[in-house]
Amino acid sequence: MSASELSEYLTFATDLAKQAGTLIKEGVDKRFAGSGSIMAKYSNPSDMVTETDQAVEAFIKEKIFKAYPNHKSAANMYFYNARFIGEETFAAGEKPSFTDVPTWIVDPIDGTTNFIHGYPFVCVSIGLTVNKLPVVGVIYNPLLNELYTAAHGQGAYLNQTTRLPLFDPKNIAPLNDLSECLVMTEMGADRSAAVISRKIDTIHNLVASPQDPGKRAIIQNSVGTQAHSIRSTGSAALNLCCVAKGVADVFWEIGCWEWDVCAAIVVLREAGGITLDGLKPSDEEVNIFCRRYLAIRPTGDKDSQLKIARQFWSLVPKEGIRAPRDAVPGGYEP
Amino acid sequence: MSASELSEYLTFATDLAKQAGTLIKEGVDKRFAGSGSIMAKYSNPSDMVTETDQAVEAFIKEKIFKAYPNHKSAANMYFYNARFIGEETFAAGEKPSFTDVPTWIVDPIDGTTNFIHGYPFVCVSIGLTVNKLPVVGVIYNPLLNELYTAAHGQGAYLNQTTRLPLFDPKNIAPLNDLSECLVMTEMGADRSAAVISRKIDTIHNLVASPQDPGKRAIIQNSVGTQAHSIRSTGSAALNLCCVAKGVADVFWEIGCWEWDVCAAIVVLREAGGITLDGLKPSDEEVNIFCRRYLAIRPTGDKDSQLKIARQFWSLVPKEGIRAPRDAVPGGYEP
Repeated sequence: MSASELSEYLTFATDLAKQAGTLIKEGVDKRFAGSGSIMAKYSNPSDMVTETDQAVEAFIKEKIFKAYPNHKSAANMYFYNARFIGEETFAAGEKPSFTDVPTWIVDPIDGTTNFIHGYPFVCVSIGLTVNKLPVVGVIYNPLLNELYTAAHGQGAYLNQTTRLPLFDPKNIAPLNDLSECLVMTEMGADRSAAVISRKIDTIHNLVASPQDPGKRAIIQNSVGTQAHSIRSTGSAALNLCCVAKGVADVFWEIGCWEWDVCAAIVVLREAGGITLDGLKPSDEEVNIFCRRYLAIRPTGDKDSQLKIARQFWSLVPKEGIRAPRDAVPGGYEP
Repeated sequence: MSASELSEYLTFATDLAKQAGTLIKEGVDKRFAGSGSIMAKYSNPSDMVTETDQAVEAFIKEKIFKAYPNHKSAANMYFYNARFIGEETFAAGEKPSFTDVPTWIVDPIDGTTNFIHGYPFVCVSIGLTVNKLPVVGVIYNPLLNELYTAAHGQGAYLNQTTRLPLFDPKNIAPLNDLSECLVMTEMGADRSAAVISRKIDTIHNLVASPQDPGKRAIIQNSVGTQAHSIRSTGSAALNLCCVAKGVADVFWEIGCWEWDVCAAIVVLREAGGITLDGLKPSDEEVNIFCRRYLAIRPTGDKDSQLKIARQFWSLVPKEGIRAPRDAVPGGYEP
């Protein structure tokens, strides 16, 4: 796809994100006034969809179909807020196939839990893939008025004027060690034991002092570290944008979805960051559908990024289930 | 102290916070330009002090001493960034006594780790106690340009115009259950096994599904919950301000210090929130020196706040050390 075609898509997605952001902001204002934000679907306390999610989704779909009538097949739309809207978009059991055609991968509200509380890390995330690669990404947080835009080969920007990262990687100290890193992660919507135990143990390994006996007990052979700290905004897309800015060093999450990360991965890559598999060591850029993500900030030096990634992988337990102690007294099952 | 005297202190502290914020913002800008933010004291990767912390501290001290020459005794200054600056302010071994006189309790930069990374939750926190009670609180985040101000009996404000909380508690659903709560907490600077294990297990209890076998295995008799989620800004003061706004429901931390919370507790109380002991069940407002804090957002109804607090206390392990499995195979020591 030519640079001018990409620019055209980027301009369209940027305008669309601003309009969608206005709807989201109105939804938050209504909530503070005591109306709006009615729950549309409620699966459990960590997985919710509001009427605003659905309204923003419908708005974005209509605009895309109007601008690009030939994008109306199922193949052009990975376009749902978790499984719920998918159920509504597609007939029961139907699953769109991922193809080379331009494909919109959209989360109408990333950070729905924040939206419900009014916590200001809420965004619309609009990604576009062509030939199965993410090439356009636009993320807009209407509560903090932060717009992130990127197209393949054209750089990443904050509010269309400030090039990302916010600093020249050559100007600051290189990434030497995971112990110097500020790491972003989330508890997320999937609270199954397999996912949560793995997250909790990974965080424990990340933050505990190397001398912590508890940590050494729970994870055999852990290399250990004492990272600067953990930050959580509640939005995978906005966490990735923090890494693209360079104000956080690492983002890791398992269990989130392609619509949470597609647009942000374009922003991060264009800023000079990398996104790898969250569990399996590999130097390759991640498959956006894999639901396991490890992102490293721009450094101007891929070797340093991969070093941090390797340190991180070594901290993640091999198995995701924290077995009851009386069943597996010696530690994790291999 | 009269309302007009309190207003005068509030005006002074507000001007001071704005000036200090300018110094902090310059420090971040210098860091992005590749200079500044030189480490002044480094204890470990989670406990750092920069030259900017020290410069802002010196600036604030000078301004206070100039405006209030009779505040120059040690009794008027709980005024250090962690133990480091304390060591410099006072002779070795000298510890100021906490008295009824007006006492400034100040953190020049709350969120020093964020400051080092450029992560935008950085603030100056200026609190004043009289008769041992926190009565004036000013917090300014120069990166997001958010100013929080409060004086006893005079309400709490964002940017001097918006009364907190951001919504009328009567307009929204009451706080019914911890499972509906957005909880703010931090890994903090103290990475000792006793503190970190207790934090990690509390978070696990908070977020895991009640059906999680791992959770039930680690904490006997836990009531269990599946809270909406966890958020971490990296600043205890700014976390408390989120609770004062009402955009988060609960803040809990053990191990932070009076200068992290003094000003924010005034903001939270004036907004209608409460701050209790982080570990020991009690309906009394917390002693600001206790280093264990549990704050609940404004609800217009103290019973609902105390209900959430009781649910929270039941999730915190009685002991703070996660014993090695092979030593204590059945779980925690009692």
